Amino acid sequence: MLYTIFEALADSNVPGARLMSYLTFRSGLAFVLSLLIAIIFGSYIIRRLRTMQIAEKARRLGIEGEAVKSKTPTMGGIIILLSILVPCILVGNLGNGYMLLMLLTTVWLGALGFMDDYKKLKYHNKDGLKGKYKIVAQVGIGVIVAATMYLNPDMVIVENSEVISRETNRVEEVIYDEGNVVKSPQTTIPFVKNNNFNYSWLTEWMGGDAAEVGGWIVFLLVSIIFVAGTSNGANLNDGLDGLCSGLSAIAGVALMAMAYLGGNLIYSAYLNIMYVPESGELVVFMAAFIGALVGFLWYNASPATVFMGDTGSLTLGGIIAVCAILIHKELLLPILCLLFYLEDLSVMVQVAYFKATGGKRVLRMTPLHHHYQHDAGSIKNVLFDRPKNRIPESKIVMRFWIIGMILAVITFVTLKIR
Amino acid sequence: MLYTIFEALADSNVPGARLMSYLTFRSGLAFVLSLLIAIIFGSYIIRRLRTMQIAEKARRLGIEGEAVKSKTPTMGGIIILLSILVPCILVGNLGNGYMLLMLLTTVWLGALGFMDDYKKLKYHNKDGLKGKYKIVAQVGIGVIVAATMYLNPDMVIVENSEVISRETNRVEEVIYDEGNVVKSPQTTIPFVKNNNFNYSWLTEWMGGDAAEVGGWIVFLLVSIIFVAGTSNGANLNDGLDGLCSGLSAIAGVALMAMAYLGGNLIYSAYLNIMYVPESGELVVFMAAFIGALVGFLWYNASPATVFMGDTGSLTLGGIIAVCAILIHKELLLPILCLLFYLEDLSVMVQVAYFKATGGKRVLRMTPLHHHYQHDAGSIKNVLFDRPKNRIPESKIVMRFWIIGMILAVITFVTLKIR
Repeated sequence: MLYTIFEALADSNVPGARLMSYLTFRSGLAFVLSLLIAIIFGSYIIRRLRTMQIAEKARRLGIEGEAVKSKTPTMGGIIILLSILVPCILVGNLGNGYMLLMLLTTVWLGALGFMDDYKKLKYHNKDGLKGKYKIVAQVGIGVIVAATMYLNPDMVIVENSEVISRETNRVEEVIYDEGNVVKSPQTTIPFVKNNNFNYSWLTEWMGGDAAEVGGWIVFLLVSIIFVAGTSNGANLNDGLDGLCSGLSAIAGVALMAMAYLGGNLIYSAYLNIMYVPESGELVVFMAAFIGALVGFLWYNASPATVFMGDTGSLTLGGIIAVCAILIHKELLLPILCLLFYLEDLSVMVQVAYFKATGGKRVLRMTPLHHHYQHDAGSIKNVLFDRPKNRIPESKIVMRFWIIGMILAVITFVTLKIR
Repeated sequence: MLYTIFEALADSNVPGARLMSYLTFRSGLAFVLSLLIAIIFGSYIIRRLRTMQIAEKARRLGIEGEAVKSKTPTMGGIIILLSILVPCILVGNLGNGYMLLMLLTTVWLGALGFMDDYKKLKYHNKDGLKGKYKIVAQVGIGVIVAATMYLNPDMVIVENSEVISRETNRVEEVIYDEGNVVKSPQTTIPFVKNNNFNYSWLTEWMGGDAAEVGGWIVFLLVSIIFVAGTSNGANLNDGLDGLCSGLSAIAGVALMAMAYLGGNLIYSAYLNIMYVPESGELVVFMAAFIGALVGFLWYNASPATVFMGDTGSLTLGGIIAVCAILIHKELLLPILCLLFYLEDLSVMVQVAYFKATGGKRVLRMTPLHHHYQHDAGSIKNVLFDRPKNRIPESKIVMRFWIIGMILAVITFVTLKIR
């Protein structure tokens, strides 16, 4: 909104008007705005949530501090949604397709999570929405995103063009010819030529146009799997104070950095990575996303005064997956979001093993993060600390964050490995 | 060391050899290495420190949890020092002047902090080294850094050259002529032309060469003030689990990003900021610095199993100040490290007010962060949370971190404000 106004003013001599045309400036503004919205309005929303007595009845886990937690209100994801949407509407370019897809994802999954939380609170049980509704909604947004990328003629990529003289380390000239502008289901993975992998390679045997369409169908399926997997992974991950908000913010930083580099012609040419025109706008969205999460941590950090609920967690995972898909980096998600997928996996393995053995467990408790809250013995005495006993919650959270940071850095460095 | 070896191999066809010539790759490696060193060797060092019974006798603060803290070993800064130095020696370019100055700063202030800690432990008191020795050492490293920047003919800057066609958003050509390469005490602040401020402007009235030399002397004094102020600020800041290590890492990220952009001809031309040839190597150092701190947080996060002691905190502040000076961004430190300086200030104001009024206090306790641990009433009920009582330690730490992040983003955005 402000973006459009200042865009119109840019040619005039209004001081500062030009600043709004800088992506970096708008992103910084989006970050600070969303953070302040979360902190300032967060306090009010938390009090409202608390007095409306919609306090999640914590599962009986047999973990200390649980009694305290059952008084903490949930559905705090509302704070996150608000802090993402308002700054994006204010300083984002609402004519940008990538931005609009992100906003749609936020509203769509936010609504899903809200209904889930609402049902849990209303009927005082832990069930919420039926699993099939969740899956349908997650698949739905995956389809919308992938189909838009296929159908929208403006969503193209420009294949890597190395135009840098390595001797002088100078950009001689960055000009791409029209032949480099392509519309194809390409994605980024290490070790292949230029780090560009085309899904159509998998369907080449179909030949001709069928191969091309087949590639897009593979891309569609991959998108659906990642949206559902990441959304559910974040959902399961959300069980310790600050854990899911912090990990999502860390993944957000890596995605923001990759969107910034891949959305800029000069940087992408310099780094010799795929250039995705117009996708730089995602930097503004991700800045608001990170700001919202950091602002939410103001209250959500241990000891939490609010939980995000499914309103938050389902949305966070979805946003991360969709952003990665839009910048053609979805196949890096298994590294970047490994911890989310391990949460998915820990539950699946535990349930399968429990059924198969008639009552035995692999981990002391799932999802994974709860495992470390129980008396430890295995996993190298819980990674070198050799405690006689359980690890304190706040320390588990910090260690998950640290592992998340390592994964984010590794993800980033893969751009250079070829 | 490895850098030199791979440099020699680069022209051969050894696979992967070329990777070591990428700054981004070496930085990622330095980060992961330092993090792993801190985590893996940290456990061993902590057990050694504990058994050597060098456990700091915590001040009697009347704060709960104190009894626990008096058993936690201090001097954990050794872990940080090790995790910075080893990766830098391995993957850093040891022929680079900026890298060498950072390594010298680390060893110099690390030794100072170590002697301080050692004296405290040996004589079982809180005094440690006399204040005058600390100041002399801090001033000493400030003088060495500033003098090297003046005397070393290779440490130059290239004034901003905007060579980007704004219409096409393309770098047409990045070539600077020799006239742009200057050796002058310039620094970056917002609002002035090109964001470049020359200290010689303050001494212009001296005329001619005297003005130039005078500018360097002003620069020297500024450097000394920032090294001493930041080092002491970090030292005072180090009083809650994870507080100082986290804030230093956050400041480190901002400095690393600025070093990366300012040390790259293409990025600096694109952003129209001052180019500092060879300073890109600081990215490797700062990556190791951040990795060391994050790895240290593995143990130092609440509830801490080790404290950094003065070995850590004096060094951290010094490193931050020296890095900012080397990339000509020292005048942005009052924003970036505001919290450190507020800690300095809170103590000074408290002591002065206490003496002047014969026993009254401004804050409930200093340094600043302890203020929030006591029954709160003022400061808008401790920023909107409106607790009836003290804020939990881990929450104070998170909130200081969040404020640190906001300051880091603001610092970064100032590069664009002109």
